[in-house]
Amino acid sequence: MRIDLNADVGESFGQFKIGEDEALFSSITSANVACGFHAGDFNVMQKTVDQAARQKVSIGAHPGYPDLQGFGRRELMMSPREIYNAVVYQIGALKQFCDIQGVTLNHVKPHGALYNTASINRTVADAIAEAVYDAVPNAYLYGLCNSELLQAGNKIGLKTAGEAFADRRYTTEGTLCSRLLPEAVLHTYEEIEKQVMDIVLNKQVQTITGEMISLQADTICFHGDGQGVASHARQIRRALASINVRVSALGDAI
Amino acid sequence: MRIDLNADVGESFGQFKIGEDEALFSSITSANVACGFHAGDFNVMQKTVDQAARQKVSIGAHPGYPDLQGFGRRELMMSPREIYNAVVYQIGALKQFCDIQGVTLNHVKPHGALYNTASINRTVADAIAEAVYDAVPNAYLYGLCNSELLQAGNKIGLKTAGEAFADRRYTTEGTLCSRLLPEAVLHTYEEIEKQVMDIVLNKQVQTITGEMISLQADTICFHGDGQGVASHARQIRRALASINVRVSALGDAI
Amino acid sequence: MRIDLNADVGESFGQFKIGEDEALFSSITSANVACGFHAGDFNVMQKTVDQAARQKVSIGAHPGYPDLQGFGRRELMMSPREIYNAVVYQIGALKQFCDIQGVTLNHVKPHGALYNTASINRTVADAIAEAVYDAVPNAYLYGLCNSELLQAGNKIGLKTAGEAFADRRYTTEGTLCSRLLPEAVLHTYEEIEKQVMDIVLNKQVQTITGEMISLQADTICFHGDGQGVASHARQIRRALASINVRVSALGDAI
Amino acid sequence: MRIDLNADVGESFGQFKIGEDEALFSSITSANVACGFHAGDFNVMQKTVDQAARQKVSIGAHPGYPDLQGFGRRELMMSPREIYNAVVYQIGALKQFCDIQGVTLNHVKPHGALYNTASINRTVADAIAEAVYDAVPNAYLYGLCNSELLQAGNKIGLKTAGEAFADRRYTTEGTLCSRLLPEAVLHTYEEIEKQVMDIVLNKQVQTITGEMISLQADTICFHGDGQGVASHARQIRRALASINVRVSALGDAI
Repeated sequence: MRIDLNADVGESFGQFKIGEDEALFSSITSANVACGFHAGDFNVMQKTVDQAARQKVSIGAHPGYPDLQGFGRRELMMSPREIYNAVVYQIGALKQFCDIQGVTLNHVKPHGALYNTASINRTVADAIAEAVYDAVPNAYLYGLCNSELLQAGNKIGLKTAGEAFADRRYTTEGTLCSRLLPEAVLHTYEEIEKQVMDIVLNKQVQTITGEMISLQADTICFHGDGQGVASHARQIRRALASINVRVSALGDAI
Repeated sequence: MRIDLNADVGESFGQFKIGEDEALFSSITSANVACGFHAGDFNVMQKTVDQAARQKVSIGAHPGYPDLQGFGRRELMMSPREIYNAVVYQIGALKQFCDIQGVTLNHVKPHGALYNTASINRTVADAIAEAVYDAVPNAYLYGLCNSELLQAGNKIGLKTAGEAFADRRYTTEGTLCSRLLPEAVLHTYEEIEKQVMDIVLNKQVQTITGEMISLQADTICFHGDGQGVASHARQIRRALASINVRVSALGDAI
Repeated sequence: MRIDLNADVGESFGQFKIGEDEALFSSITSANVACGFHAGDFNVMQKTVDQAARQKVSIGAHPGYPDLQGFGRRELMMSPREIYNAVVYQIGALKQFCDIQGVTLNHVKPHGALYNTASINRTVADAIAEAVYDAVPNAYLYGLCNSELLQAGNKIGLKTAGEAFADRRYTTEGTLCSRLLPEAVLHTYEEIEKQVMDIVLNKQVQTITGEMISLQADTICFHGDGQGVASHARQIRRALASINVRVSALGDAI
Repeated sequence: MRIDLNADVGESFGQFKIGEDEALFSSITSANVACGFHAGDFNVMQKTVDQAARQKVSIGAHPGYPDLQGFGRRELMMSPREIYNAVVYQIGALKQFCDIQGVTLNHVKPHGALYNTASINRTVADAIAEAVYDAVPNAYLYGLCNSELLQAGNKIGLKTAGEAFADRRYTTEGTLCSRLLPEAVLHTYEEIEKQVMDIVLNKQVQTITGEMISLQADTICFHGDGQGVASHARQIRRALASINVRVSALGDAI
């Protein structure tokens, strides 16, 4: 049994602080680092890569739409060519900090609305997969389990990782419930632990309507801007260790 | 006799068009490509790198202050650490497009106010030189002849290239006359050709007060947003070829 | 017979120049001034309002999505509340320059993707109409003839102006043909004059498939970034004057 | 005895939260609202004006340099004309929200590096004063006691308010100690209360070197992003009330 625990980090911008990166780094195995478009800036990226490297957390690029004010959570109608270029740009910028730090850029995971669109829109998924393949062919592409993004990644020849969410409710179709629904997010540690254990041990997850569906996940995401996320991640990691599940990044990056 | 002819390109942004890149590419040997901070965007960068590669023009990064509205021409009081990070970020983003295109990032030349400050402020110069060295240790660092930037580059172990300007008047001290002065810019082709020939053939330049001072330049800059710059560059290149001056990029990038 | 001729102006940004504003001001009667979100900046706005006032061209706000790189032409999924606030902000900024200049903000016309969405999406149309009504209740709201935007404006109690386009092909349904179609834009002056005359004199327009449909327009738009637009506008204005059509802004702003 | 207590508010941006606005509104009498350049956005501005109006806190515009990533704390070399336009733009945008809310824009206080430069540079001070006078001639201009900004405001005919800082150390010259110095900021409530009482009751303040200098302040600033600032402001307000100092905004805005 093996699982990767990832979180979005490096989402601060200038004087604007977001997240509990320092606390998260001791619990997660992979860090999705914002690249300056929806969040993060050149200073935050440098510092985040440095911290992740010191804590031996595997580093991934977390490219988003160029929409800082909307935090990359608003759909923006970019053409496939624009998306390709935007992803290449963001990967390149982050990879440079990794290269200087002497660490590998191990994965790429799109952010927010770009992630959601790539889950269901094959054209967008292909544009992202192509950019990742051209820029970092040995990196893992993270995407929602069963998404168009994973299929696009597999098709082009990338290693891919199916992602599940520790604190998000699933629909019967295996997609995430909209954040607009009040029950979309799990809040208590007990709910979150149950969901993680279902996913890791039983390859399944309980949907919002109560039934169990199968879910084959390689990595589990903890929302970096959630309440108490660092504490939850720490407890989950301990719980997984106590039952001898190996928690580690994908591949042998670190 | 050998000289490199460079110009700032890729300075368009979205629907906003600047410059005559297409026309310039047939005359210059090195292109300084804007990296999205003072000008340029991910789409323009991709297209510009592609064009430069096809025209066998050597590519350099042209990082500037994060000030699109001021086109990087306004001094912005960033700390050395911020400047280092901003330069690393911009180099990385551009290099990714070069890597995908299969071409080398051959040089780095700071833009606008960052260039001017680095000419006279050693702390800023050191921050830039360190960023270039850490990111692309084999690249040339372009700087104003006799500038602090060149000294910083030499000290850290970078190859450097002293830059002269085809259409800018020089002071007696060998610095550029302020653009605020009406005589700061040469407008006629005859003036420009005379200045280039003085620099290339005689290693000297006439100052605004009339005397000749010595100037040891490796590369000559044509302002990408000047009037008729592409035409001037084309004529200069032909004039240099006619007297058997070798016009080529530094090193063997192309 | 009376018609208003409008054009988008003030779309330059910093060193990035767009449009032929100076030439257009002598032919149009209403100017849609960009407000810094999709184009324009505080310097351009000041200068544009000053020029329009001197040329006695009526001034309107031209608010867009906050997407400079996409020139406001990419759909961005903002909530109605966000759109309301973004429109209020942009109107307020421009109105301040008008107030200082001693001229009235006579109309508001949304830009690009915001205009298109407001034509067919009543929720977005209502958000814009509400913002305009709250900020400048005496201003005209410009919108595509027969659009949701005009209906929203009428319902809330605004004066509205139906807009037709001098150089865009219409579908049978009276909407604009997509710019993705090669025939979407009229290029020759003859075609443009015929379309304008049809609209002004006969209240009808020829569609892309050849038939005539009725079109009740109060104002005709000349695209500020089109080729030769200033020349076309000048000729049209002269042609209209020669047949005694009164060309003037709506209301008595100037 | 009368004093105004002010704080910078509305400095959040999109998902990026800064400050304890809600808590501050119950203690301060004047709110300096960011206008979208160094902080704040159209949504935050609408919400902040609404909150301030409901809490009967007087509202002022808090314009800054267009530098979100640097939070307006980095000097940016803008020309006087650019500064004038940038201040007009920001005032206009905020005033529109005030107008809709039915409240007056009662003052203007420049932010960060713009404030500091305007304290010592008369050209910049004049540009700001002119913008405020042209846009909101009845508003108060806030500036550092004895600054060039106050003199520029007085000269042009604005009402001005000398500002002192609750938690910043003063030099012997009556200017603020640089934030780079460790002792630049007062941290304990006791120190802050002593400084405020010295200023309000005795029109003097103790400098970093220990002596008392005179200081004639109309308003006292609590830093909106300081630690525990809301708590400090609440205690100070109570302490002032207990000795019958009238705490109120300048003029009769509320």
